[in-house]
Amino acid sequence: MGTSVFFFGDGRAEGDPKRRDLLGGKGAGLAEMTSLGLPVPPGFTLSTEVCNAFSRTRRMPDEVRAGVDAALTRLEKAMGARLGDTSAPLLVSVRSGARASMPGMMDTVLNLGLNDAVAEGLAARSGSPRFAYDAYRRFIAMHASIALGLSKEPFDRALDDARGRVAVTKGIDRTRLNAEELKRAVPDADIPVEELRALVPAFKAIVKKETGEDFPGDPREQLWQAIEAVFASWNNHRAVVYRKMHDIPDDWGTACNVQAMVFGNLGDTSATGVAFTRDPSTGEKVLYGEWLPNAQGEDVVAGIRTPMPLRSQGGARASESLEVRMPEAYRELDRIAGTLERHFRDMQDLEFTIQDGRLYMLQCRGAKRAARAAVRVAVDMAREGLITKEEAVLRVDPGGIDQLLHPTLDPHAPKKVLARGLSASPGAASGHIVFNADEAERRAGQGKPVVLVRVETSPEDIHGMKAARGIVTARGGMTSHAAVVARGMGKPCVAGVSAVAVNYESQTMTVTLYDDAGLPTGNVTLKKGDVITIDGGTGHVYDGAVPTVSAALSGEFGELMGWADAGRTTRVRANADTPLDARTARAFGAEGIGLCRTEHMFFDEERIQAMREMILADDATGRAAALAKLLPFQREDFVGIFREMRGLPVTIRLLDPPLHEFLPTETRQLEELSRSMGVPVAKLAARTRDLHEFNPMLGHRGCRLAITYPEIYAMQARAILEAAAQVAGEGVEVHPEIMIPLAITRAELERTRAIVDHVAAELAAGGKKVPFAFGTMIELPRAAILAAQLAEVAEFFSFGTNDLTQATMGLSRDDAGKFLPAYVDSGILPKDPFVSVDQEGVGALVKMAVERGRSARAKIKLGVCGEHGGDPPSIGFFHGVGLDYVSCSPFRVPIARLAAAQAALRAKGQNGGLGTA
Amino acid sequence: MGTSVFFFGDGRAEGDPKRRDLLGGKGAGLAEMTSLGLPVPPGFTLSTEVCNAFSRTRRMPDEVRAGVDAALTRLEKAMGARLGDTSAPLLVSVRSGARASMPGMMDTVLNLGLNDAVAEGLAARSGSPRFAYDAYRRFIAMHASIALGLSKEPFDRALDDARGRVAVTKGIDRTRLNAEELKRAVPDADIPVEELRALVPAFKAIVKKETGEDFPGDPREQLWQAIEAVFASWNNHRAVVYRKMHDIPDDWGTACNVQAMVFGNLGDTSATGVAFTRDPSTGEKVLYGEWLPNAQGEDVVAGIRTPMPLRSQGGARASESLEVRMPEAYRELDRIAGTLERHFRDMQDLEFTIQDGRLYMLQCRGAKRAARAAVRVAVDMAREGLITKEEAVLRVDPGGIDQLLHPTLDPHAPKKVLARGLSASPGAASGHIVFNADEAERRAGQGKPVVLVRVETSPEDIHGMKAARGIVTARGGMTSHAAVVARGMGKPCVAGVSAVAVNYESQTMTVTLYDDAGLPTGNVTLKKGDVITIDGGTGHVYDGAVPTVSAALSGEFGELMGWADAGRTTRVRANADTPLDARTARAFGAEGIGLCRTEHMFFDEERIQAMREMILADDATGRAAALAKLLPFQREDFVGIFREMRGLPVTIRLLDPPLHEFLPTETRQLEELSRSMGVPVAKLAARTRDLHEFNPMLGHRGCRLAITYPEIYAMQARAILEAAAQVAGEGVEVHPEIMIPLAITRAELERTRAIVDHVAAELAAGGKKVPFAFGTMIELPRAAILAAQLAEVAEFFSFGTNDLTQATMGLSRDDAGKFLPAYVDSGILPKDPFVSVDQEGVGALVKMAVERGRSARAKIKLGVCGEHGGDPPSIGFFHGVGLDYVSCSPFRVPIARLAAAQAALRAKGQNGGLGTA
Repeated sequence: MGTSVFFFGDGRAEGDPKRRDLLGGKGAGLAEMTSLGLPVPPGFTLSTEVCNAFSRTRRMPDEVRAGVDAALTRLEKAMGARLGDTSAPLLVSVRSGARASMPGMMDTVLNLGLNDAVAEGLAARSGSPRFAYDAYRRFIAMHASIALGLSKEPFDRALDDARGRVAVTKGIDRTRLNAEELKRAVPDADIPVEELRALVPAFKAIVKKETGEDFPGDPREQLWQAIEAVFASWNNHRAVVYRKMHDIPDDWGTACNVQAMVFGNLGDTSATGVAFTRDPSTGEKVLYGEWLPNAQGEDVVAGIRTPMPLRSQGGARASESLEVRMPEAYRELDRIAGTLERHFRDMQDLEFTIQDGRLYMLQCRGAKRAARAAVRVAVDMAREGLITKEEAVLRVDPGGIDQLLHPTLDPHAPKKVLARGLSASPGAASGHIVFNADEAERRAGQGKPVVLVRVETSPEDIHGMKAARGIVTARGGMTSHAAVVARGMGKPCVAGVSAVAVNYESQTMTVTLYDDAGLPTGNVTLKKGDVITIDGGTGHVYDGAVPTVSAALSGEFGELMGWADAGRTTRVRANADTPLDARTARAFGAEGIGLCRTEHMFFDEERIQAMREMILADDATGRAAALAKLLPFQREDFVGIFREMRGLPVTIRLLDPPLHEFLPTETRQLEELSRSMGVPVAKLAARTRDLHEFNPMLGHRGCRLAITYPEIYAMQARAILEAAAQVAGEGVEVHPEIMIPLAITRAELERTRAIVDHVAAELAAGGKKVPFAFGTMIELPRAAILAAQLAEVAEFFSFGTNDLTQATMGLSRDDAGKFLPAYVDSGILPKDPFVSVDQEGVGALVKMAVERGRSARAKIKLGVCGEHGGDPPSIGFFHGVGLDYVSCSPFRVPIARLAAAQAALRAKGQNGGLGTA
Repeated sequence: MGTSVFFFGDGRAEGDPKRRDLLGGKGAGLAEMTSLGLPVPPGFTLSTEVCNAFSRTRRMPDEVRAGVDAALTRLEKAMGARLGDTSAPLLVSVRSGARASMPGMMDTVLNLGLNDAVAEGLAARSGSPRFAYDAYRRFIAMHASIALGLSKEPFDRALDDARGRVAVTKGIDRTRLNAEELKRAVPDADIPVEELRALVPAFKAIVKKETGEDFPGDPREQLWQAIEAVFASWNNHRAVVYRKMHDIPDDWGTACNVQAMVFGNLGDTSATGVAFTRDPSTGEKVLYGEWLPNAQGEDVVAGIRTPMPLRSQGGARASESLEVRMPEAYRELDRIAGTLERHFRDMQDLEFTIQDGRLYMLQCRGAKRAARAAVRVAVDMAREGLITKEEAVLRVDPGGIDQLLHPTLDPHAPKKVLARGLSASPGAASGHIVFNADEAERRAGQGKPVVLVRVETSPEDIHGMKAARGIVTARGGMTSHAAVVARGMGKPCVAGVSAVAVNYESQTMTVTLYDDAGLPTGNVTLKKGDVITIDGGTGHVYDGAVPTVSAALSGEFGELMGWADAGRTTRVRANADTPLDARTARAFGAEGIGLCRTEHMFFDEERIQAMREMILADDATGRAAALAKLLPFQREDFVGIFREMRGLPVTIRLLDPPLHEFLPTETRQLEELSRSMGVPVAKLAARTRDLHEFNPMLGHRGCRLAITYPEIYAMQARAILEAAAQVAGEGVEVHPEIMIPLAITRAELERTRAIVDHVAAELAAGGKKVPFAFGTMIELPRAAILAAQLAEVAEFFSFGTNDLTQATMGLSRDDAGKFLPAYVDSGILPKDPFVSVDQEGVGALVKMAVERGRSARAKIKLGVCGEHGGDPPSIGFFHGVGLDYVSCSPFRVPIARLAAAQAALRAKGQNGGLGTA
């Protein structure tokens, strides 16, 4: 451990503000502000290394004790006051401050240094016994809670008793008020000094009773207790959970800042507040924030007093603004805000205190901001010349902009929450409840907005999902059929709402209601036609219609995306199965289609019939006859898509799922099919049984179908190439790419290529010559391992990382819901590997396949079309291993464009081109 | 292409007999015999390179034409005869001869060089017009069939017509005889010369009619047609299929041998025959074979005349023996046999012809032999000093000795085949048909031999499979449950008998019968109690009881295994789940247990109940109570196994399969369980539904169970360690190895290790300290990729190559039956990857894991416990990548010992230690 205690004050700071890893965010900010000559109360920072050492040994190293003693001496000198001195007492705050912001997650002790004698001294020196005893009683309660680990409750009760006594003097019947009302009736400011003074022995008695020991009167002992408590708080439950959620490593540790107190509660010329250098909701360039006169920092967030605006502009409360009430302090704050923003070249979040009219800065840090604001701030700053356009691109979290691309609930509208599930696909929607896909389609056809509610969805529900405004399922996770399809459609979906019990027979859903503590409080039953609203971004289901606000892409957003595209090298395509999908994708800036799944095309009513005839045919002739019926449909699909994507490549994956997915599963459906096909139910049932698979994921699917039934791929190849010829004949540029799923051997590609080539040769003989590319998915480990062999036949690879994840990790995403959450929660896996690609396992195979594929065919085109193609960290990984493009659902295309740009800019930065990554 | 035509004759051969790759087996043998000074008719060999060149271009290179001309000139000189010469005609044979023996797979033309004039000349020179025209008519038919591609049928018909005319002269009514009977009534020798002479124009007319061209009269043209036909035969369908079956590369090509004809059909001082230098069935060191006087080679195999024994010894036919009839030739043959065996240092298969009392050798090659003979020959030759012990070990095919370890059907007993399925588990057994496991157990308990017949088996049938002598299933492949379990038990099994329809209700099975052409001819229904016999080595199901012969391991076998063990470095363990398995394994030489599956232990009636209670428990307490019931059973199992395996390591895999495998699936069983547990059927059904998985292979199983239900592994760890402590207390050395299934992260191993360590610490505190090893299966690609991380916790790896194959290739072995056969038949995959490990895909992951595992823990113990552990080529691979041991079913332990020894000896050979691999 190097230097462990860093002093700041008098315009100089020992610590290097760039060493956030050592000083923590708060300590670095204090050091920076001090160095900039801003008014910061002096103090010192114990480094994160001390935290780690203390976590390991539960003891404070001797060198740290010596360092604190030395720093304290300097602090006392700077302040002209001493800890425990009764005539010139020094009070300090002790606060945690980690490398990454963990708001509200860790602990703080204020006013440390008080004991009976010092309190008397402070009363004398400040001329305000009320101030002194208010500080003293706050300190005892805070220190007891944070450093001694006691509950706050007995202290609050004692304080309420005091309030009660005051209430009586005001003629208020306190027995009729609850604690909250009492607090409003008798605010802290109304508690007279005698009551405050009387609280001290009462609080000390509580401590004695609970701990068996006296409250520490020695300010040094107080200081060490508080420092150790701050370090210990790094491992408290809240902090551990927060770190897990935000991917913060446990070994970062927190720093601890000891700083001279300044007081915003010394009377009406004192105040405290928080400020943002720009509006964190909109990004507008105005000083934004709140303040309270005669208050300590904790009062601003406590919610008892209503904080007042900083700026006078705009509205009824101009007279309450800091700008009007304390114009000089306001101007100083505004000036400092500008200085800090220019210095840090980013929007800042500030804490300040005004003591006797003098402004002190207590904290500055990069400000959290809404996605909309992030975009505007980044673009504005680039326009202002504060940052480069590249930096602007790097400033916006790609994951966050999702909410800018979907309608959202009107934040001001009243809402009644019914239940909560997984936020499976973002966006908000209202509609009448329907319980099956056909009904959804019918009602939507009549112009009624509907929300489809199912226990879970299956491919047979696709038309209903298309027709519905939103989807709710009672079962299933983030990667359930409903979630995956809804995200692909850009449609709101709340999945796995376990409180909902669906009854298809009675066409009702019963929702168990819960209180805040998670205990059931009753239930409510909704029937078909009732209206609900869902927010797929939060996972909430609301009763009735809640108004929604459409997504409006502001001008800044478009500008930022333009800058992103300029910095980007990885191309972005979309997964799109229909002309409508294709149009949406293109509107969002897709540079091609990376995955067009042909199987979804077979679920329309008139097609599924022919599909089933094909599957149930006894021989190749019967199959060919059924396939001939499907050919015109398929061709028509592709014509539409090729037209939409004029000039851009379209990768079409030939049939992939096992055939049993197309067969009806319910007896009633079987009977219907039997009637319409004129085939006995028994035969249909037998064939269905024949096709049953124990592990369909690893079964007879993908190109394995074409090895046993080559005529299927022949029909699909013909549909693609005929459509391409037709559209090319219209003068439209067409780039079809035919993709083979699930290959694991070169021979499979040779044989499927022969099927396609044969069709192409036939068409060419008829004068319809269409150039096309031939490639394969890489979605099984063997394909990655043998990528060099596959690349001898395939002109492109598209990584199907969904299936590759399933096979590599042995995880079925349909089944993983039973244990995957436990794996992620307990940290066995860092993230859901279906959301963000498992870089060390699955990613290693991707990397291997890239290297081996390129070794065999230097110019092979490489992309990814799994859902990871829309996940920013995964996109960064794919950029790093050198893929040519990522492909994702149309609604995630802007996210992918931004993430890809950031990956490129970061890589450039690492190579010395850019310093701000 | 280097020299392409190699002459042999007059005691010298141009070709190097070691270059079988160039000369083919036959050509090399002829060269070798010529060099040894043995009587070989001269000739020349066109190399395999010519075949490859011809296959590519369909043209014969000019240099080859020149080479043949030159060689032919030498041949004519050596024979003092010339091709097409009427006074001294040279006749030649033209035969294929590939590098590896492909018996009957390729084509031969004899007597080439005849035309009308030459035939007259031959008649004159030989003094036997009959001989000349017999040769001529044979040649035309053979050449027409082989070189011109005509059907044999019209030639046979013309010959039969001639026979018919002869029959009439003998007073036989030919209309009452079929072709076969006619052939016996009028053998070739009875056809007079006029008829033979008359066949020539008749045969020529057939050729003219079928081809539109005259039969070639120019012997040179005949020669080139025959040579090209031999080369073309390399790619005929039979040959391609044979190569696929025997792993012979397509690009080896065949050589073509042109050799002066000698004639065994020149009268009673001429003869032809085949000989083995030892008895190919028993391995006994005696000259063994058959001969026919006055015959050409093809007559011996044609089956019209019954060949006679070579040796006089033993039996009724001594007077027919070559030893008695032509003692000089016999002695010469016996001397040559000895010479060749000493020269080749292996048992030889010889073809010879005696022309006018003079012996000619036409072929010698390594002899195919039965497994029993292979063992005896190898051991005898080593004892004789002919080969080393190491060579003896290398001489025996490990795959072949399987049949020495199981009972076999009496080859002399009459049998009636009912149906044929897959040879799923070797051995033969007879018994009464039973259709369910309980009945099997009951009847077997009454001492009746039973054969269990099921549509397919499941884990609930285990007790019935144990009780049965053999198992038949109507569905399922080589890796179905029935096949895998039966092999594990060393019990005969015929699986996937598609001709069998089982009716559980009527307790019958209906077998569809087929004729030789594969057309159904009717069916037969067998009922419970009827007797059938199965041969799991051939896949046949026979009607009634067929007597069986027990496996007797001869003394030679034991001796050979001893030599094998001396040369072996890879250890061999067995997969064994019970004390009985363990005893069998030890008897077969297992050096430990590599896989003890604990789940099979839970299927006994009294245990499955507790298991189900555990699964259906509502909480950890309920689970713990049920587990407490299982603990004594588990402990008892392990006590038994540890005692059997005293001193040897025992690897125990903790619970692996998904829990739903233990729940009943049929309504009746659910109802029974409901009654016995006092839990409503609805609740049981709901829980069963909850546990249902779409892809159980990739679901909630393996150590994932322990992450969600740690108490299961805690119970198992306790059972293992308590059992070990108990047995150690008896003074028996115990080496438990606790193995975690399905791990993909280090964290899983850390947590499961913590569970085991906790139990171990508790026992140690109670004075029962047992050392144990802790390790993991490597059975998913991610585990292989992250092997270095896993090795930080695991002290050993055991490759579960069954599951690793499934995940790496995306192949469910339960479902692959629908397409895997097509994949193997059409050559997309070289072999069934569940039988022989996919070296380039799955094997690459094994290799990676070995390297990474050792990099993290140099002394990590590495083994394999998938079924590949008993497959000789796979064992060779595992030896190559450096595994410490393989583990296989007890009955395959000797095979694995031999295969492992061969792998080690071959590796040593490659390093210069041994030259005969």
